[in-house]
Order: sequence, then structure tokens, then C-alpha cells
Amino acid sequence: MTGFEKLKIAEEKNNSLVCVGLDIVADRMPSHIERSIDGMLQFNREIIDATSDLVSSYKINFAFYEQYGIRGFELLQKTIESIPNDIHIIADAKRGDIGNTSNAYARAVFEEFECDSITVNPYMGEDSVSPFLSYKDKMVFLLCLTSNSGSNDFEKQKIGSDYLYEIVLEKSMKWGSAENLGFVVGATHPNELKSIREKSNYNYFLIPGVGAQGGNAEDVVEANGNGPAIINSSRGIIYAGGNEKKYSDFSRLAALELRNQLNESRY
Amino acid sequence: MTGFEKLKIAEEKNNSLVCVGLDIVADRMPSHIERSIDGMLQFNREIIDATSDLVSSYKINFAFYEQYGIRGFELLQKTIESIPNDIHIIADAKRGDIGNTSNAYARAVFEEFECDSITVNPYMGEDSVSPFLSYKDKMVFLLCLTSNSGSNDFEKQKIGSDYLYEIVLEKSMKWGSAENLGFVVGATHPNELKSIREKSNYNYFLIPGVGAQGGNAEDVVEANGNGPAIINSSRGIIYAGGNEKKYSDFSRLAALELRNQLNESRY
Repeated sequence: MTGFEKLKIAEEKNNSLVCVGLDIVADRMPSHIERSIDGMLQFNREIIDATSDLVSSYKINFAFYEQYGIRGFELLQKTIESIPNDIHIIADAKRGDIGNTSNAYARAVFEEFECDSITVNPYMGEDSVSPFLSYKDKMVFLLCLTSNSGSNDFEKQKIGSDYLYEIVLEKSMKWGSAENLGFVVGATHPNELKSIREKSNYNYFLIPGVGAQGGNAEDVVEANGNGPAIINSSRGIIYAGGNEKKYSDFSRLAALELRNQLNESRY
Repeated sequence: MTGFEKLKIAEEKNNSLVCVGLDIVADRMPSHIERSIDGMLQFNREIIDATSDLVSSYKINFAFYEQYGIRGFELLQKTIESIPNDIHIIADAKRGDIGNTSNAYARAVFEEFECDSITVNPYMGEDSVSPFLSYKDKMVFLLCLTSNSGSNDFEKQKIGSDYLYEIVLEKSMKWGSAENLGFVVGATHPNELKSIREKSNYNYFLIPGVGAQGGNAEDVVEANGNGPAIINSSRGIIYAGGNEKKYSDFSRLAALELRNQLNESRY
């Protein structure tokens, strides 16, 4: 099964556009959980068990694992192994480099860590992205317009009559198909999301920024229309339980609420 | 000692602008070396021993280590530990993400892997770069104009009367000082290198693309003038010995030749 098929099937089976971002931070876990690699694995597994029938995908932000060094990569690998086989796994790694180097990154993420898709930075152009796209059974989510304030610095600079993020969209759509190329579009820009969707009807959008970053779920669904989407919430779901012993019940509730809220806006 | 000071001192002591890129690939090592993590560590250590009095810095391209999974990170860590304390270590990791995520990447590279500097992708703007710059004793090399053909796709797109890479340079120069902010400028663009140098007299340039990628050492030095520079060669040095038993002698010779060639053009 390709990463694209896995995503479609999980989305339908769980009737959900929700992606849960497993942004692990030792000090944000409930206080009764040991601040250790084992404690973080226990936390991730509880969150996965409590939410895997409510999501289409999990997003693994590599930075949060890399910050714990080699043992962090063990945590990353064991977390990935804990995700049910029928749920899509996004490596949110924001990679991208010259060809032979992107090849090595693709091998790391797709073959060593066995993720279904990866986020890639477009700055260095086509030959930095194509090694990821050459894995025909995997997916690339190219950064288009990100959710942070820094998106004003370059992404929203005008090149002729278009913004840089529009040039990125327009050029890169020719590099892949709707089955292996999607775009990252932040939930914090609903107006732009709408116009990006009009130019790219069939590609998946990975939409972060709902919840802790301030994006509104209803606005996102309205702007996105019926386009294929993965709507991510990280902190808003995984830390919903605060210091509660049964923290994962709260995460389940938060994921369920987001799923239903998105579905109500959709239909 | 800050990363900047370490770089200046190594550069003077070894009278060298050369950086050796330790782009390890099992199948490119001499055939008598075991294709294993231990074999690759042995290879890296021999290259480091043979060249550390001829360089200002080593560049560790994270992709080549990540491609071997968790054991690759052990190799990365042990390789870093094998580099003499007085030589600057560049984490060529091309990272960059929203603030809290860039924080975690900075912690990984500067605290866990104890590198002196990192390459960062500017696409996501200031708040994606500033967490790296907040480590005052470390350095950031921001991608400006890269050495690959894909640099034509976006970096060389015109925004008004300037190219995107010029906008990146101009805006980001305000984010850091000459002691903690440098730029990646590919050796394959000598004309542009010259004009970038004119706009940025005091910042270090990390210049890849000499050797295997086709950049010419003399052209680079001429274009760069007397600006502070790190001139990287990876494959051209580490694989100079082909299948020879004494491969590291050939690497030493290649590093020496590059150092002398750069110095002759400089003075």
C-alpha cells in the first residue's frame, strides 16, 4: 500500500481529517510520568492508543526527538513502531539539500525510519526535492506558506505579481502528482489558504497551526473547501490532560472534538 | 572559546581556509575497509588524523549519517569526538522550523552533538532562525545562494530589482553579528559571490562546491576578495585515495594542494 492509499483509507475508516503531532517535551508531560526516554515512550504510546481510531495520521516532528541525542532517535523509532500499521506517518523533518544529500535524507526517513511522507523545504529548488519524490510509494509535503510570523519575511515577498509561496506552488506542482506531492499551508492564513486551494485542487494540504498556534478549525475547513487535507494539532491534543493521571482520556476528548468540529464544518 | 574564535584561531594556526566535508558513504570507501559503522568510523578517523593540521574546520553533513539510522548517529557522535578540540565543527544540517521547533533543533546540534555552527534554511523567516542565533557562542550559516542547479528555481527569482538570495542577505544581516552569522554561497557562482561579498564585508561565507561539484578554487578566492571564508571540499578530499591501502595519504595531499592553491590566490 502506498503512503497516499494509507492516508485515504485511514481518513475514511476513522472519518477524520485529524493528524496528531507527537511533539514530545519531557517537562510538559504530566508530573507523575518519569522524565526519561522510557517515560516519554510510555506517554507517546498512551496518546497513540487513546487516539488512533480518531485520526488519519500522526506527525513526528524530528526536532523534538533529536534534542535528546542518540537516545532520542531510539524514542523516535519505538514511537513509530507503536503506531498502528494502517495509520499514515508524516516525518515532519523539513529536510532539503543538494541531490546526493537529499537522497541520503530520503533513505533515512523512508527506509530507516519507515515513514510514509516527509515535509521538505523548497528553497534550494527542484533537484533538492526530486530525490524524495523518486520514492513513488511515499509522499512529499513541500513547505508553501507556513503558519509562523516569519512567513512574512520571504514567503510573502512579491515576485512580479505573485508571492514567493505562489511561485513555489506553481513551479513545484509540475514535479509530482496529486498522489505523491502535497503542500504545507498554515491554518493561520485562511484567506491565502483559499486562494492556494483554488490553484491546487487535487493535492493534499498538510495544515498545521490549529489550536496552540491560533488557527481556527472552522475557518480552515471553509477556506479549504472539499480539498484533500490533513489538519494537525500537536500541543492542543497531546497536553490536553495537564497533570491528570488519566491524561490520555483528555487527549482522546480533544482529538474527538477537533474531528467532529472539522466534520461538522465539512458536511 | 566561541565557535567564531575557534574558527579564527584554527584558520591562522593552520594557515588554511579549507574545510573538509566528512560525507561518509560506505560504498565509496576503499574496498579493504569493512562496510560497517565501525569501518566508517575508522575511515573518518584516518581522514581526520591525516588532515587536521591543514584545515580550519570539518563539516558534518547530517544526511550521510542519518541514512544509517540510529547507528548512524552513534557514528556521527564518535566522529565529532575524534575531531581535535581546536578545530571548528560545522553541523551541515540545513534545519529551520517554527520557533519552538528550531529551539529543539538548536539544542540537538549545539548541546547534544556539541557542534560549533549549523547551516540553516531561511525560507520560514526570522523566527525560524533566531533560536539558533540565541546561542551567542555558536554560529549560524544561513543558506543564501546554493551551489546546485535548483538555485535557479527560487533563489535566483527576482523580487522587484533584487534576487531572492539578495533579499535573504539584506534582511538577515540585521538578525546577527559578523561573529555569529555567516552565509552559504556556492563556489559555482563566482560572479554572484563577488556581488554578495560587496554587500557583506565582514560575515563568514561557507563556500561549498569546489572540486566534485565543479567550482574553481582560484575563481572563488578572487571573487571573495579578502572576506572571511570557509572553503569546503568533501568527495574531492576524502575519496582522493580511491582503493589505495594508504588512502589517507592521498586525502592529505588533496587537502594540502587545496590549501596551497587557495593561499597562493589569496596573497
